Amino acid sequence: MKVWYRCSRCGYTTEASSWLWRCPKCGGPLDLIIDSLKLTLSERRDLWRFSSVIPARPVVTLGEGYTPLINASFLGKNTYLKLEYLNPTGSFKDRGSAVAVSKALEFGANTVVEDSSGNAGISIAAYAAAAGIRARIYVPKDAPEGKKSLIRSLGAELIEASSRAEAGRLAIESVRPGEAYIGHAWNPWFLQGTKTLAYELLDQLGHAPDAVILPTSAGTLLLGLWIGFNELLSLGLINKVPRLYAAQAQGFASLYEKIHGDYVREPARLADALRVSNPPRIEQMVKAIRWSNGDVLVITDDELLQSWKFLLRRGFIVEPSSAIALSGYVKLRENNYLGDDEDVVIILTGSGLKYIDIMSKI
Amino acid sequence: MKVWYRCSRCGYTTEASSWLWRCPKCGGPLDLIIDSLKLTLSERRDLWRFSSVIPARPVVTLGEGYTPLINASFLGKNTYLKLEYLNPTGSFKDRGSAVAVSKALEFGANTVVEDSSGNAGISIAAYAAAAGIRARIYVPKDAPEGKKSLIRSLGAELIEASSRAEAGRLAIESVRPGEAYIGHAWNPWFLQGTKTLAYELLDQLGHAPDAVILPTSAGTLLLGLWIGFNELLSLGLINKVPRLYAAQAQGFASLYEKIHGDYVREPARLADALRVSNPPRIEQMVKAIRWSNGDVLVITDDELLQSWKFLLRRGFIVEPSSAIALSGYVKLRENNYLGDDEDVVIILTGSGLKYIDIMSKI
Repeated sequence: MKVWYRCSRCGYTTEASSWLWRCPKCGGPLDLIIDSLKLTLSERRDLWRFSSVIPARPVVTLGEGYTPLINASFLGKNTYLKLEYLNPTGSFKDRGSAVAVSKALEFGANTVVEDSSGNAGISIAAYAAAAGIRARIYVPKDAPEGKKSLIRSLGAELIEASSRAEAGRLAIESVRPGEAYIGHAWNPWFLQGTKTLAYELLDQLGHAPDAVILPTSAGTLLLGLWIGFNELLSLGLINKVPRLYAAQAQGFASLYEKIHGDYVREPARLADALRVSNPPRIEQMVKAIRWSNGDVLVITDDELLQSWKFLLRRGFIVEPSSAIALSGYVKLRENNYLGDDEDVVIILTGSGLKYIDIMSKI
Repeated sequence: MKVWYRCSRCGYTTEASSWLWRCPKCGGPLDLIIDSLKLTLSERRDLWRFSSVIPARPVVTLGEGYTPLINASFLGKNTYLKLEYLNPTGSFKDRGSAVAVSKALEFGANTVVEDSSGNAGISIAAYAAAAGIRARIYVPKDAPEGKKSLIRSLGAELIEASSRAEAGRLAIESVRPGEAYIGHAWNPWFLQGTKTLAYELLDQLGHAPDAVILPTSAGTLLLGLWIGFNELLSLGLINKVPRLYAAQAQGFASLYEKIHGDYVREPARLADALRVSNPPRIEQMVKAIRWSNGDVLVITDDELLQSWKFLLRRGFIVEPSSAIALSGYVKLRENNYLGDDEDVVIILTGSGLKYIDIMSKI
């Protein structure tokens, strides 16, 4: 498999033979171009079932991927729930981490560096631990205490920054030779992990869904789905890309603003995993929404809280930020954006077990 | 599939056409006898892949079973880790709950009643929620706060008792017509869920392992494995039952005492999920250990803490009670109970995400 980096901004192209997380010419986000893609399913029932389309070897794995796809009835309609919160560290981020950390190891890194609002930090810390290399994780100081403790317990060095944006700046500045900056919001290898979700949905459903609803902040899941479904289209395995619906938290709805205009409101507090203000891949995210004929939905804390309680009371132990996708579903259903016979998948991205200390307060 | 209850104590046998959790004649634990067992694997990749040997329909499911089996090197030897903590509510208990709650529904129950040190309560609460019936859960008042909050958030009624034993007494006394007492330590249907782990290990490995090491308190996992492997033996699919090694927490080592004599020591505190003093199926547990040529190991808090930290620092986010199985492995390896070429599986039973609030204190 031959692989190139290509800058999504200036078009600069170079062989992917060393670790890059952004364009060395213009600083833009990089895509990965894979020569003569072919899909051969392996016998495995994890992310590496799709090894033939992943440009990395499974150097480190914790059993990521192949999460349950469950049938549920919401608002009287049959719907699918994809339980990404059952990944090894409790979030879909494990797909990206498994591939990105495997690749960093392949390129000889002795340390991985990440900035995160929590889940990506936990995930990268766990994969670094599994790989036996060091991890240095920068988080905003108001990240949930439990998530910070877990990152430390996984053996990573944890550094608290004054804000989410500051965590990113400090992480990038800190990187020394031999260290690989993951930066999941930038990293093209990370998206090669999250793209497997598209392949997996096809594998589990037997056909592509009509619509997928997902929480969105930095866009790693949205773009993974976009890449994956487009690859499936180019392979002739599906006829069209499903409509991608991004649910965003009020106050952190940069994608909504970019598509529908300004929407500055009081920031939501419950969706702590979605607090990204300037996603570097925003232009690509806009394309994924527009070209898939999808849309963006902005969700308030009140709506999110209602969805969170609803999911818990049906046995789905998700985190608040995940419940936002159900709020998106409700809005779409109420406004007749979803056909009665359409196959709709709601992605439940993160585990509520990380939040049991605050559950007594809701 | 024709199914009978048979009392393991007095031999009383009756058709399994209504809900029983213990013998109506002598109060002993019931076994389920299945007529003309046949194994046909379904296409599903969850517990119901083994539907042909489960005497219940999948009335309620949250995606339980088919958890990852990971290769790891411990003490310089290749070993398998079975990640049961990635089940839907974060413990292997979900196997038993899915089958037991499905069966309770089939028999018309409107409420399930359970007593638990935490994980079984969470699991039963979640499956009741998914099924749309009520759950009433009795826990000792010193169960972890997070676990209690989660049980409430899942919509169950939570009742705190003065001790683990008192929780059991209160639960049993409380049961009214139309309600099904699960009582996982007693319940024969619950074991029909946990037995699938034996089938799954065979399915994933391609052959039976030589030895399985697992945390043990009430014996639901030990007996599930014992039943499952014996069924596989009777089906001619394996040649012998793997040696079953039960790791118990100091002070709650009733199985060890029964086999090796008295062992009264200061109770361990960290293994909160393993605090059962008088398991009702103790005679069967003794047989499972003896007849499989296995053994029982008693683990101290210090040993457990070391194993817990070790697993976390390799990216396995388990709860303290799960780490006890690794401590058992270390003792077995050090004392040459495990052959160099043997396939050894360590079962990691519960999720550490339920403990992130206490991780900062270790």
